[in-house]
Amino acid sequence: MIKVGVVGGTGYTGVELLRLLARHPMVKLQAITSRGDAGSRVDEMFPSLRGRVDLAFVAPQDARLEDCDVVFFATPNGIAMQQARALVDAGVRVIDLAADFRIKDVSEWQRWYAMEHAAPELVHEAVYGLPEVNRESIRGARLVANPGCYPTAVQLGFLPLIEAGIADTSILVADAKSGVSGAGRKAEVHTLFAEAADSFKAYGVSGHRHLPEISQGLARIAGAPVGLTFVPHLVPMIRGIHATLYAKVTGAIDLQALYEARYRDEPFVDVLPAGSHPETRSVRASNLCRMAVHRPQGGDVVVVLSVIDNLVKGAAGQAVQNMNIMFGVEEELGLDVIPVSP
Amino acid sequence: MIKVGVVGGTGYTGVELLRLLARHPMVKLQAITSRGDAGSRVDEMFPSLRGRVDLAFVAPQDARLEDCDVVFFATPNGIAMQQARALVDAGVRVIDLAADFRIKDVSEWQRWYAMEHAAPELVHEAVYGLPEVNRESIRGARLVANPGCYPTAVQLGFLPLIEAGIADTSILVADAKSGVSGAGRKAEVHTLFAEAADSFKAYGVSGHRHLPEISQGLARIAGAPVGLTFVPHLVPMIRGIHATLYAKVTGAIDLQALYEARYRDEPFVDVLPAGSHPETRSVRASNLCRMAVHRPQGGDVVVVLSVIDNLVKGAAGQAVQNMNIMFGVEEELGLDVIPVSP
Amino acid sequence: MIKVGVVGGTGYTGVELLRLLARHPMVKLQAITSRGDAGSRVDEMFPSLRGRVDLAFVAPQDARLEDCDVVFFATPNGIAMQQARALVDAGVRVIDLAADFRIKDVSEWQRWYAMEHAAPELVHEAVYGLPEVNRESIRGARLVANPGCYPTAVQLGFLPLIEAGIADTSILVADAKSGVSGAGRKAEVHTLFAEAADSFKAYGVSGHRHLPEISQGLARIAGAPVGLTFVPHLVPMIRGIHATLYAKVTGAIDLQALYEARYRDEPFVDVLPAGSHPETRSVRASNLCRMAVHRPQGGDVVVVLSVIDNLVKGAAGQAVQNMNIMFGVEEELGLDVIPVSP
Amino acid sequence: MIKVGVVGGTGYTGVELLRLLARHPMVKLQAITSRGDAGSRVDEMFPSLRGRVDLAFVAPQDARLEDCDVVFFATPNGIAMQQARALVDAGVRVIDLAADFRIKDVSEWQRWYAMEHAAPELVHEAVYGLPEVNRESIRGARLVANPGCYPTAVQLGFLPLIEAGIADTSILVADAKSGVSGAGRKAEVHTLFAEAADSFKAYGVSGHRHLPEISQGLARIAGAPVGLTFVPHLVPMIRGIHATLYAKVTGAIDLQALYEARYRDEPFVDVLPAGSHPETRSVRASNLCRMAVHRPQGGDVVVVLSVIDNLVKGAAGQAVQNMNIMFGVEEELGLDVIPVSP
Repeated sequence: MIKVGVVGGTGYTGVELLRLLARHPMVKLQAITSRGDAGSRVDEMFPSLRGRVDLAFVAPQDARLEDCDVVFFATPNGIAMQQARALVDAGVRVIDLAADFRIKDVSEWQRWYAMEHAAPELVHEAVYGLPEVNRESIRGARLVANPGCYPTAVQLGFLPLIEAGIADTSILVADAKSGVSGAGRKAEVHTLFAEAADSFKAYGVSGHRHLPEISQGLARIAGAPVGLTFVPHLVPMIRGIHATLYAKVTGAIDLQALYEARYRDEPFVDVLPAGSHPETRSVRASNLCRMAVHRPQGGDVVVVLSVIDNLVKGAAGQAVQNMNIMFGVEEELGLDVIPVSP
Repeated sequence: MIKVGVVGGTGYTGVELLRLLARHPMVKLQAITSRGDAGSRVDEMFPSLRGRVDLAFVAPQDARLEDCDVVFFATPNGIAMQQARALVDAGVRVIDLAADFRIKDVSEWQRWYAMEHAAPELVHEAVYGLPEVNRESIRGARLVANPGCYPTAVQLGFLPLIEAGIADTSILVADAKSGVSGAGRKAEVHTLFAEAADSFKAYGVSGHRHLPEISQGLARIAGAPVGLTFVPHLVPMIRGIHATLYAKVTGAIDLQALYEARYRDEPFVDVLPAGSHPETRSVRASNLCRMAVHRPQGGDVVVVLSVIDNLVKGAAGQAVQNMNIMFGVEEELGLDVIPVSP
Repeated sequence: MIKVGVVGGTGYTGVELLRLLARHPMVKLQAITSRGDAGSRVDEMFPSLRGRVDLAFVAPQDARLEDCDVVFFATPNGIAMQQARALVDAGVRVIDLAADFRIKDVSEWQRWYAMEHAAPELVHEAVYGLPEVNRESIRGARLVANPGCYPTAVQLGFLPLIEAGIADTSILVADAKSGVSGAGRKAEVHTLFAEAADSFKAYGVSGHRHLPEISQGLARIAGAPVGLTFVPHLVPMIRGIHATLYAKVTGAIDLQALYEARYRDEPFVDVLPAGSHPETRSVRASNLCRMAVHRPQGGDVVVVLSVIDNLVKGAAGQAVQNMNIMFGVEEELGLDVIPVSP
Repeated sequence: MIKVGVVGGTGYTGVELLRLLARHPMVKLQAITSRGDAGSRVDEMFPSLRGRVDLAFVAPQDARLEDCDVVFFATPNGIAMQQARALVDAGVRVIDLAADFRIKDVSEWQRWYAMEHAAPELVHEAVYGLPEVNRESIRGARLVANPGCYPTAVQLGFLPLIEAGIADTSILVADAKSGVSGAGRKAEVHTLFAEAADSFKAYGVSGHRHLPEISQGLARIAGAPVGLTFVPHLVPMIRGIHATLYAKVTGAIDLQALYEARYRDEPFVDVLPAGSHPETRSVRASNLCRMAVHRPQGGDVVVVLSVIDNLVKGAAGQAVQNMNIMFGVEEELGLDVIPVSP
């Protein structure tokens, strides 16, 4: 059994981790920490877990995380970077669901996240946990930087195009839409039901923190910087991300075959038949990314539609997938949830 | 392995059955019938099942249902009653998710459902599939009438009160609220998104078909007819039923202890701590019924709050629970889905 | 022109007041106060008002409210009671949309609202602003206590029954459902979109502050205390209240005729034809209360369905209606908005 | 008074027209036709109109439309083209809210709409009713083709860029999102609440009927064909369109000033301050188009965000605006509804 600790279990990625880990046949949940709610039962805050998680939140200092085999950080940005060093030194493997170790260029990270990095040397070591790109490195990693939700949907969608070298990477557009749970379980006015329901808007057009993360990933594949315009939007739904991707391509390639071949062996990427329009509900509560590729009117603009559940493949599910890879168990273990539809 | 057939797999209870059965470790899905969609793949209509259900719909006459161990009817009312006789005679056990066998008084059934009953003799034999009341009879049943969604939430909520004989059964009120999936996957104007979203209404106040079913169930427990007022409402949500139940009680009884004792050994009924308010999302996608019992201001009116997922404990999940009981396998097999929240 | 001041313009009742007042042909908006947002433009916070409200929020002390003809308090409970005395003494008429002056029994008010009352002598003078009951007193009132949202829907629904003396007032049930805007524009976790959407729950079953307000109103009509059970619920919609009311009646009375006669001359109460089920969206954004009365199966339980928009007839609209009455202008002035449907 | 007839009053654009016309001070509603619902009262189908529209639907042949000053067609595509000739010849002015007269190239229209055009000669005469482009021609028009919802939001958003000649019109991207009411009040499975709620998807990527309409409009402004990729999406909200527009620009122009200057005198187009993100709810129920223009990271890609209410500025409201222009009354008459928010 893999002994697991979760730091920061009171947000949406935290409770989603618990939903997945509680059913995972190889996992023993050791500790769930919370500074503010230490002492109170987990299932009191999250009644959905009654009968499945029989733990109380503990204060970080009482959690004995160094006895775990792996620790997940489901914390705000800036927490994991302060604690990862000690855990890694103690032989504990770390998976950070926040952004602390995602950007290789520390000064760029500091600009976007507006704080000093506490463990720049670990940034270099950390493996970016997108299994479809980095599976082999993840296997041996001591520290995994779990990708952001938008970056997962966008990178997986662009990947085959860019790997094939047929896209004009100087002008890529990612028009992305997210359910409101992506904003986290924080008391804020703009994500109140009465604000976000029955409405739609873009946000962060001038610059969103996921932009450098996506650009870095695409550039790595392209072997050169890319010109990406990324516009996120807020959708009045709870879960789900839909990325609509636009790229100019050159040459007459069979895009459907390209995408199917690229993802044939990926357990969590599903290329739909030509002409499809994936819905976010077709992946709700599951670790899948479904996508479709179009070339409207046979022109030179390719449109890729890519959907994930932001809390699963976009966060907790991908983290568990990374854990499975790191510990050499079957990659789909504990992740066999069938999407909940309708 | 239990060989399973599903008649009518294109509605919401059908696809939900498939979601549960596809993961059930003791089930082999043999056939899914559809008159209108025979020949087309199930996962084309329901992309959420891609990779999990590898069948095409077959016409009923080609389904060889008589080779199954059990057949589920996820059909409109009036279908199962025409086919159940032949299946039962062939030794196939039948679980009807529609209303054909729920009401013991055939003439009353005919009045509420406005058609002649095709198999009145089977009505007598059929066992009403509410395990918390009829578990032993279900075990040996050849034909199970799976309860309606509202009736499940309402009966489970009133049960302890009425069994204890402390409620004035001449005036019971069940104010029930359902998500829109309860209306089925039928093209109708009043359940369009633009009609049902951001709005709330009652319906069927003058008489809803679940009224006689609930009254019959409560009367059986009470040993006498009951006076029930039942008002259903439509909630702008996909899944979930919330029943708010009102009864006048006599005597000073510890209601919390009464409810906890009644359901202590029930795997799918969860009595919340005193003072709780169950949310439908705390059972979303799971087979649970969660409830809380209140006595506001210490008066003589008891308020019971009872929530289920209408498509699971209110339909497909309860049907699988019944199958598990009928075939002597563990009652929770295939039903260990943790509620999806948020 | 009526010179109007609004204290506390940053919540939902505040912005709704502005929506209505900005179009009111007899109103001149003088000042909108906000402690926290003084100096910033109103239409920056509420872009829906761009081009219609050309004011900035001012600090309360700079607002010169004593120069207004009427001041609305769209503030949290406990604010108006501190400022009303001075305004009334200065000849300014006051309409409080909060609860400070609704409960005549000051000690009961203090128990429910958990604070000391700052102006108990004004409680006596204040007129409860339900025009359908108190129109004449409102006309001359210096201080109007605008009713709560639930109390408006519930009292209007029970009114004809109780006035006619045919209901057993010892056991009344009000099962009420509200959209999420009823909780206000406050940053809180339980009203986040991801918490409140696609879910349904009751709250405050042990005792909600609107219970004593409704009980007081019904008792006044009945001429004796009433036995009321009131259970509020949260509906995943923005606006709207639906009250489902249950009462036992004696005697064979034509309920439809009773209700139609009672409200024939009321501009904002609409009794639907027999057999109707009013939807909240049929009054969305308007000052109407629509209702229907049922007697299921001809029994002795009457079911009344009553819907309002909680922000209009349940708050800002009723406040404007009260202002119109107080200043002797046409009661419907500025309130001729047609409900927005779908 | 303008005598008005409405053909096809049972859909969403129909009821929205009635909401606006019923309050219009210069309009006398003469007749509302419906083939299927002739004889039944309008407010029985649409309770929101109780007390405001006192008409019954009449059969088209009984409507005496030739006595009207103007007739609106709120019908499916292919109806207006059969009746417009006779009305125009009778001196009645016609505003078609469907697509019959929007595309000047009849053969292209026939390809996209898959039917033969019944009045090709009227196509030539018809004026495309986008006042911000064609105000003068609308004034004298006998027949106005009211623009589609997506085309309104997209064209208004691109307009200043293209007029200024600074956009590379060979590669324009319009990623558009619509509320579900855009699909009309037709009983269809894919727009059921349980299908469309809590989910998001693209549709019609291979080619949507609004594509040629938008391309025609943009080409007219550019003076040459444009290369447009248009992808519509379905948002789980009732009303609203959000268009996110991408264009490559050349030269260092003050985009904010450009947009503000272009729309300074337009009563229904509101350019938000630099850095804004318009929400669809900021125009809900109103005839406004609000927009913001961005140039992320100072690059050469411009992002325009443009929102409308699809049923108002995208349909019924724009039709009334056109009527006002055609009859020489104030353009904002009857359209002074303040957006309903929240």
